[in-house]
Amino acid sequence: MAHAEMLGKQGIISRADAKKIIHGLAEIFREIESGEFRFMADLEDVHMNIEAALIKKIGDAGKKLHTARSRNDQVALDLRLYLRDEIKRIISAIDALMNVLVDSAGQHIGVIMPGYTHMQRAQPVLLSHHLLAYVEMLDRDRSRLKDTLKRVNVLPLGACALAGTSLPIDRVYVAEILGFESVSENSIDAVSDRDFAMEFLSDAAILAVHLSRMAEELVLWSTEEFSFIELPDAFTTGSSIMPQKKNPDVAEIMRGKTGRVFGHLVSLLTIMKGLPLSYNRDMQEDKVPVFDTVDTAKASLAVLVAMIRHIRFREKRMTDTAGEAYSTATDIAEYLVQKGVPFREAHEITGRIVLHCEESKNKLEDLKISELKRFSMLIGSDIYRYLTPEGSVKAKKSRGSTSTTEVKRQIKRFRKILKSKA
Amino acid sequence: MAHAEMLGKQGIISRADAKKIIHGLAEIFREIESGEFRFMADLEDVHMNIEAALIKKIGDAGKKLHTARSRNDQVALDLRLYLRDEIKRIISAIDALMNVLVDSAGQHIGVIMPGYTHMQRAQPVLLSHHLLAYVEMLDRDRSRLKDTLKRVNVLPLGACALAGTSLPIDRVYVAEILGFESVSENSIDAVSDRDFAMEFLSDAAILAVHLSRMAEELVLWSTEEFSFIELPDAFTTGSSIMPQKKNPDVAEIMRGKTGRVFGHLVSLLTIMKGLPLSYNRDMQEDKVPVFDTVDTAKASLAVLVAMIRHIRFREKRMTDTAGEAYSTATDIAEYLVQKGVPFREAHEITGRIVLHCEESKNKLEDLKISELKRFSMLIGSDIYRYLTPEGSVKAKKSRGSTSTTEVKRQIKRFRKILKSKA
Amino acid sequence: MAHAEMLGKQGIISRADAKKIIHGLAEIFREIESGEFRFMADLEDVHMNIEAALIKKIGDAGKKLHTARSRNDQVALDLRLYLRDEIKRIISAIDALMNVLVDSAGQHIGVIMPGYTHMQRAQPVLLSHHLLAYVEMLDRDRSRLKDTLKRVNVLPLGACALAGTSLPIDRVYVAEILGFESVSENSIDAVSDRDFAMEFLSDAAILAVHLSRMAEELVLWSTEEFSFIELPDAFTTGSSIMPQKKNPDVAEIMRGKTGRVFGHLVSLLTIMKGLPLSYNRDMQEDKVPVFDTVDTAKASLAVLVAMIRHIRFREKRMTDTAGEAYSTATDIAEYLVQKGVPFREAHEITGRIVLHCEESKNKLEDLKISELKRFSMLIGSDIYRYLTPEGSVKAKKSRGSTSTTEVKRQIKRFRKILKSKA
Amino acid sequence: MAHAEMLGKQGIISRADAKKIIHGLAEIFREIESGEFRFMADLEDVHMNIEAALIKKIGDAGKKLHTARSRNDQVALDLRLYLRDEIKRIISAIDALMNVLVDSAGQHIGVIMPGYTHMQRAQPVLLSHHLLAYVEMLDRDRSRLKDTLKRVNVLPLGACALAGTSLPIDRVYVAEILGFESVSENSIDAVSDRDFAMEFLSDAAILAVHLSRMAEELVLWSTEEFSFIELPDAFTTGSSIMPQKKNPDVAEIMRGKTGRVFGHLVSLLTIMKGLPLSYNRDMQEDKVPVFDTVDTAKASLAVLVAMIRHIRFREKRMTDTAGEAYSTATDIAEYLVQKGVPFREAHEITGRIVLHCEESKNKLEDLKISELKRFSMLIGSDIYRYLTPEGSVKAKKSRGSTSTTEVKRQIKRFRKILKSKA
Repeated sequence: MAHAEMLGKQGIISRADAKKIIHGLAEIFREIESGEFRFMADLEDVHMNIEAALIKKIGDAGKKLHTARSRNDQVALDLRLYLRDEIKRIISAIDALMNVLVDSAGQHIGVIMPGYTHMQRAQPVLLSHHLLAYVEMLDRDRSRLKDTLKRVNVLPLGACALAGTSLPIDRVYVAEILGFESVSENSIDAVSDRDFAMEFLSDAAILAVHLSRMAEELVLWSTEEFSFIELPDAFTTGSSIMPQKKNPDVAEIMRGKTGRVFGHLVSLLTIMKGLPLSYNRDMQEDKVPVFDTVDTAKASLAVLVAMIRHIRFREKRMTDTAGEAYSTATDIAEYLVQKGVPFREAHEITGRIVLHCEESKNKLEDLKISELKRFSMLIGSDIYRYLTPEGSVKAKKSRGSTSTTEVKRQIKRFRKILKSKA
Repeated sequence: MAHAEMLGKQGIISRADAKKIIHGLAEIFREIESGEFRFMADLEDVHMNIEAALIKKIGDAGKKLHTARSRNDQVALDLRLYLRDEIKRIISAIDALMNVLVDSAGQHIGVIMPGYTHMQRAQPVLLSHHLLAYVEMLDRDRSRLKDTLKRVNVLPLGACALAGTSLPIDRVYVAEILGFESVSENSIDAVSDRDFAMEFLSDAAILAVHLSRMAEELVLWSTEEFSFIELPDAFTTGSSIMPQKKNPDVAEIMRGKTGRVFGHLVSLLTIMKGLPLSYNRDMQEDKVPVFDTVDTAKASLAVLVAMIRHIRFREKRMTDTAGEAYSTATDIAEYLVQKGVPFREAHEITGRIVLHCEESKNKLEDLKISELKRFSMLIGSDIYRYLTPEGSVKAKKSRGSTSTTEVKRQIKRFRKILKSKA
Repeated sequence: MAHAEMLGKQGIISRADAKKIIHGLAEIFREIESGEFRFMADLEDVHMNIEAALIKKIGDAGKKLHTARSRNDQVALDLRLYLRDEIKRIISAIDALMNVLVDSAGQHIGVIMPGYTHMQRAQPVLLSHHLLAYVEMLDRDRSRLKDTLKRVNVLPLGACALAGTSLPIDRVYVAEILGFESVSENSIDAVSDRDFAMEFLSDAAILAVHLSRMAEELVLWSTEEFSFIELPDAFTTGSSIMPQKKNPDVAEIMRGKTGRVFGHLVSLLTIMKGLPLSYNRDMQEDKVPVFDTVDTAKASLAVLVAMIRHIRFREKRMTDTAGEAYSTATDIAEYLVQKGVPFREAHEITGRIVLHCEESKNKLEDLKISELKRFSMLIGSDIYRYLTPEGSVKAKKSRGSTSTTEVKRQIKRFRKILKSKA
Repeated sequence: MAHAEMLGKQGIISRADAKKIIHGLAEIFREIESGEFRFMADLEDVHMNIEAALIKKIGDAGKKLHTARSRNDQVALDLRLYLRDEIKRIISAIDALMNVLVDSAGQHIGVIMPGYTHMQRAQPVLLSHHLLAYVEMLDRDRSRLKDTLKRVNVLPLGACALAGTSLPIDRVYVAEILGFESVSENSIDAVSDRDFAMEFLSDAAILAVHLSRMAEELVLWSTEEFSFIELPDAFTTGSSIMPQKKNPDVAEIMRGKTGRVFGHLVSLLTIMKGLPLSYNRDMQEDKVPVFDTVDTAKASLAVLVAMIRHIRFREKRMTDTAGEAYSTATDIAEYLVQKGVPFREAHEITGRIVLHCEESKNKLEDLKISELKRFSMLIGSDIYRYLTPEGSVKAKKSRGSTSTTEVKRQIKRFRKILKSKA
């Protein structure tokens, strides 16, 4: 319709013909929407089906629609229109997931859990801090998709088969009607280019990495061994024979979907490798990877939004394990640094204290001050402030750290960001 | 050095110690640069080697360097510093290639060649237009890398092991010294994140697709069958037995390198899939893919700059073939449209004209006006203007088309863009 | 049915119940085949649908079908049964393509074409020899798939959920009924394993490489520049505007499908990476890659069989170009070796002869004997035997070479192999 | 040397020259082995370096070595010789790992652990059974590599550049000397083919999947949460500050290496996609993926052999957790089936029993017979035999199940297989 409007404005076809075409297409659109329209396989593709229907409906004027365009620039246009819309939808879905995570972080602000490196308990952190780590990832996914959008939102129409046209078309006008930010500046490139699709698939692959990490943690945390969370029933499959069994199927499937998205990226990269210019029919194979990735991304995000909203965190279990395994040892070292001990020495002293605890089967906070002083006379009774998980978290001062103040600041920051986006 | 400077400013270590550390590190830096420094394998990694050397050089103050940091945030910092520099270098290399292509487009402005779709000759285009199609691709690569740079250029230091620190560090100050635009806002994310590396590898994979397409055309065009170009001797290997044989080895190797880059992308995506937070040692495997991709990208771009500068285009051969195969048939159709014939009819009439030519072994421009009029009375003698490759190219009017005016405009546009970037 | 039969034989259920189940399933099978059976989405999956229908049909006995099995071993069984059949079908399709290629090689036995290295003409070869190179590749694909079949054709049923069963089942009996060569020996492995699917996808990826190479050559050879073949109309799309234009769409799409298959392989590898034992729901995502690869492989092979049968080889064009570019230079060198000249010297002398031809614009066979003797007195007039493409081909003696005798031997060999397989 | 031997035997060069060449090469070989040989970069590659050294050493005879061969068939030969050896080494390394696992299975025969599906505890299994699941995987890797070896072990030499030769070489004789099982039958295919390398990389990718699964379990099992194993110190990195911390770095790195191998496979597939015949220089890029995969596979296997040998299994912890979570519920259902209850009913009854236990906070084995009979009068006191993990394991009867008898049979079977291979 935009194309016909332009053809009319430019006098390439008559205003009357343009009008007829637009009305005819509007009618066909309604028929498609309502399911009345019958696509015929022998008419080859969607464009030819619509053109045939149009000619049947409005006669000769319909034969003028395909003026100054080609299927090569049309399919590029279609994919860009589709991706532009879908990327926006995926961004909204990301926002929704960020919102749920920020909400959950806000609700669980006091809960301490073990922070892990190498899957070994390392230092106590706030559960909220951990949840916000995913919000950071999603925020980058968002930012990447928005950058991609700039390169998607370019009008290829008017490149025609590959060389442009001798007819006096107005591509900028079409771009305006269709909401494109710019027009492609090289007609050969316009029909050869699938960068925007490869870039979208790359973004989606990185997003899939994030969701797979989240899925992995959901699976891990719902094992009997971790017991950090209870997944909502709707997102697990039980076993009628073992009623306590809750298989985290949905999280597992989401983790598995990562492979799907990686595969699609590899697929399109492979297709495009070494293709001479301009249009080659291989490029028709771009559709499945793009469509299925869009569907997978949207579905995964939607499922996570619903699932995370209803996860029950076993707060006591989390907090209990956070205090095990001498997880506040680093805080002793930093305490000593503050007393003037060079870090490497502080590190060694702490190592000896922990070893002593291990041998004597004590927790760090159970040591008496006299015992502690044997390792360094600089240790005072103020050290007890740092030996519990709560003390450790509270003591953190650095920007981006797990201290409650910082975490609250992050929640506020994201609330503001997300509100401004809504 | 930036970290030590900050520790001193914040009073976490004394100003005097900070100074000593900085001097010591400066000296070690000089030793490394000059090749004097001896790395010891048993000291595990580069950080421990440097710290050990520092302690040896300046004594106890050296033991304070590692205060308020961890290897987890340090390796993230290192990779970001490295990639930040290398991405800028790759962008410069892309600029250089764009420059060479724009120059070549400028020099060959009159040369017409067959434009291809499906590797079949379709319509005449300017060689310059074809070359500029690659400039468009490279311009997008540039734009993508610049967007990536924003997400690379974030300071992770200060995240420490994963939780931040209780010491009063000033991360923003360190970011300023090191030229980072921002600091990571979540310490768990800071040490878990390799998005920036995956994103760089994605950009590089798309760049590799472009270079592989260029390489494919260089190989194709230098076949005896195409004979469009002669590659400079330095970029081919001859055969002492067949002196006329010039194997386009360099272009072939570049085409092959695409596999390498795709492989590296798959490698890092696979590594990151499903890793729970925060740091996991798997992530150490990020180095080979990133380093080798950087080297491959820079080398490929540099080789292309040198090669394209010295390619000899067989202009006559190009122009001769551009006129074959009824390549101006589309222009007849558009001529008829301008005379008021609906496009689909114009299309059919043209089809019949070409069929007639084929049967009578004529070129389109050899048909007499009386013959042409038999197909449509609307055809006048002005049609001959469009029947030669030159006429076809000249007739193009649309933005981004292959008309000389448009192509010159593009050259000017890119010259300006590239100048502003230099 | 096989499972029920075994349960009855073992007395785990009564013979009468077994009979009822088998009859019930046979009826359901007929209903599915005829399209009468109604699958209900809320019954979760195909197994539950069938069981529910069975119970409805035969009552309580139906509740005994699921004895001593689990969905974990059933889905493994299903995929193995499916792949076993489909691999056999793909092997047949490969055989068909081999047959067509061998036939074509037989029909074109005299046709000489340029053999290429680096896409540069190198030495004359028989077209039949070139076609048989693809037969070799396909023969390896065949061999690989047959090896894979051994590892596919293993019965997992009886592994139950993961631990086996306390019921006295007879797995070997079920294997016999279903035609499995062996039974899986470890129940945990049996439900965790998707090696056979990954291996099939690898085989398919290598097959896809072969088909992509063939497709590339079909595209290349049908360019105006090569003009080696004319593709049958049914496998090209024309352009009503340029009736001479024959876009090799089918070959292009086949080349593009390579990406699809590579993507599926990456997909499943990614899914399986790092999964702890035993069954995980991620594995459900194995279906799309496997199913779509099977479909793609069968369709691509079928299309090639039909297409190659109808390709018109432009024999004259092939033979004409085979003689260009001093392609028999290597034969001069070997001639000299036979006269006792060390190869490196023979190589240099030949180089000088070709250079002389190039400067004097002569073909090798146009040089007079007196001219040739100036380069080496060992050259006699018998050299002319080797200077034409025909002479060059005829002179070849080594096993596997392009000599007509050898090529005929290969054709005979493959005819025999293929006959024995039919 | 084999080639020279053949040239002499065939009279293509004199016996004396052949002898000289062989002696010269033997000397060069010794020089290379001892490190004396100096490779010169300007001599292009290893072949030219050796030939130049040979000519320097033995004069004119050296110029005859390159008779009837070409670098195209030589590089194919080199890669096949290399891979043939390395595949054998990898098979040995797999055998070694199988041995260690079988030994460990033998040593831990009584230990019961929870078997998992969906990472949720499902049924008790023997640790030995779990270990043997990996042996099964490795046995398939072995079998796959042996199949690949057949296709690697084919002599390409004598294909020359691509067409064979007019000299009367004896390829079968060379094959015999070098231990090749067959010779390539098509010279064009011989220099175009890298199937054997792609196939090897596929095998390695599947092997990498297995090792990644093992690595994942090593990481998981050494978490505080699972606490199933203690890794040997040499394979973990501690933290001087938290002496109890043992990061499973080696297992993590191995898990990360999976990405590397997948990447290499994608790399070579991409390189080969769409290459026209015959040799193209892109194929030179086959080396890095193949070499690095060989190194990675051998190193990973060797590390696992050493690591697994020294793992300490926390048997008590394993056995304790095996009995939790109603893991013997399935055994009740099978008990009822044996009493004649249809499986679906047995399943439901069991579900009700477990629910009752959950509500009354009982373990299954704590229920009194009177309580049990309330759910089904068919339950007798013999049911207690099945309610403990030991009873559950012991009750298993099916082939490949986790029963001690079956597991012992598997150990014996593998011991025999491995002995016959040694």
